[in-house]
Amino acid sequence: MVKVKTGAAFIQKTLKNLTTSTGAVSVVHSTDLVLEAVVENLQVKHELFKTLDKFAPEHTVFASNTSSLPITEIANSTTRQDRFGGLHFFNPVPLMKLVEVIQTPMTSQTTFDALQDFCKALGKYPVSCKDSPGFIVNRLLVPYMMEVIRLHERGHGSKEDIDLAMRLGAGYPMGPFELLDYVGLDTCKFIIDDWHKMDPDNPLFASSPVLNKLVEEGKLGKKTGEGFYK
Amino acid sequence: MVKVKTGAAFIQKTLKNLTTSTGAVSVVHSTDLVLEAVVENLQVKHELFKTLDKFAPEHTVFASNTSSLPITEIANSTTRQDRFGGLHFFNPVPLMKLVEVIQTPMTSQTTFDALQDFCKALGKYPVSCKDSPGFIVNRLLVPYMMEVIRLHERGHGSKEDIDLAMRLGAGYPMGPFELLDYVGLDTCKFIIDDWHKMDPDNPLFASSPVLNKLVEEGKLGKKTGEGFYK
Repeated sequence: MVKVKTGAAFIQKTLKNLTTSTGAVSVVHSTDLVLEAVVENLQVKHELFKTLDKFAPEHTVFASNTSSLPITEIANSTTRQDRFGGLHFFNPVPLMKLVEVIQTPMTSQTTFDALQDFCKALGKYPVSCKDSPGFIVNRLLVPYMMEVIRLHERGHGSKEDIDLAMRLGAGYPMGPFELLDYVGLDTCKFIIDDWHKMDPDNPLFASSPVLNKLVEEGKLGKKTGEGFYK
Repeated sequence: MVKVKTGAAFIQKTLKNLTTSTGAVSVVHSTDLVLEAVVENLQVKHELFKTLDKFAPEHTVFASNTSSLPITEIANSTTRQDRFGGLHFFNPVPLMKLVEVIQTPMTSQTTFDALQDFCKALGKYPVSCKDSPGFIVNRLLVPYMMEVIRLHERGHGSKEDIDLAMRLGAGYPMGPFELLDYVGLDTCKFIIDDWHKMDPDNPLFASSPVLNKLVEEGKLGKKTGEGFYK
């Protein structure tokens, strides 16, 4: 019980340090850092940042938590490309220690250093990324997941055996099909379709009939109760 | 001290159950299963199995622990293709619970079941594989490691940041460059060069200038004291 009380007191104390608002413009005048995490839609992000750019102080740094859109393109809606970078957190954020910090060709070193320091102050581990599709982790994980689906499509392993093999043989915490269901099949398809458009001749980014069919049927993984597994 | 004595007694007792010989022909007449783990050279494996095939009883099952050669091609040196399969163990074998059990188009179901039962009797977890390059684990791990090297070659992340990102962001037990040094850069190059020959148009199997240079310089990883890391 003591622990619960201590926890509750900690939560109350922490929440007292926070203020919330649905009017971004009304609060941006007093912030050093804006970290955007709105829907993954370039148009929506453009409109938000264009407005914030007018009302934020000169020194305020802008960052996007996008995992799929180019930071450079988002930054171009502002007049502060040198004070704009990416801060890509991982789900579930309270547990995951990693943050990908993205430097575009326009991001100043001062801004980039400040973003790294901000992550460290949160107790996170920042890694330096360029503004390239998928940064580091998704650029490696998404093609791996697509190769997994293709291996299965070729009839070279059952979902269960592939998951067991990667957990026991590679020491991964989750099998790839479990991971796909956790991430969401629509998310995976969204990313790979986007990369395919940018580089249509790369078979690594080719779409998968099995993935497309599951998404079409609304079997998106955990969030819909069924994906590769029920 | 008691523990050490118990351990020593266990080792002595276990070793008493084993007999060793350097004359394969002289012992093959009394074995139910031959598991071959000689050098990864098709010619050497052919010569061994051709001889063993003459002297082994009708019911003896042959298996290869190869990780890179087609089981079907090895089996073709014998007259018992139906009693021939793959048993691919993982290093370090006493710790790794996974065994890939490979069924060629000629392997009978009785043989395949017996190989799976053998793994279970050892306390291992067998997964069913087809006789396709890299089976399950290497088919997924090797292209992933090549994509990692290419990401680094493009200047999109330092070795240290990529390793940290995959450990913290994907929960992998080792970063990919640590894994490459552990596996051996020559082994990785050997596998990818082989797959490139089979499928030259697949950019996934393309060679990497950085990997080739390190191998040329004899920097093969842990075993030579230097690879991607010192």
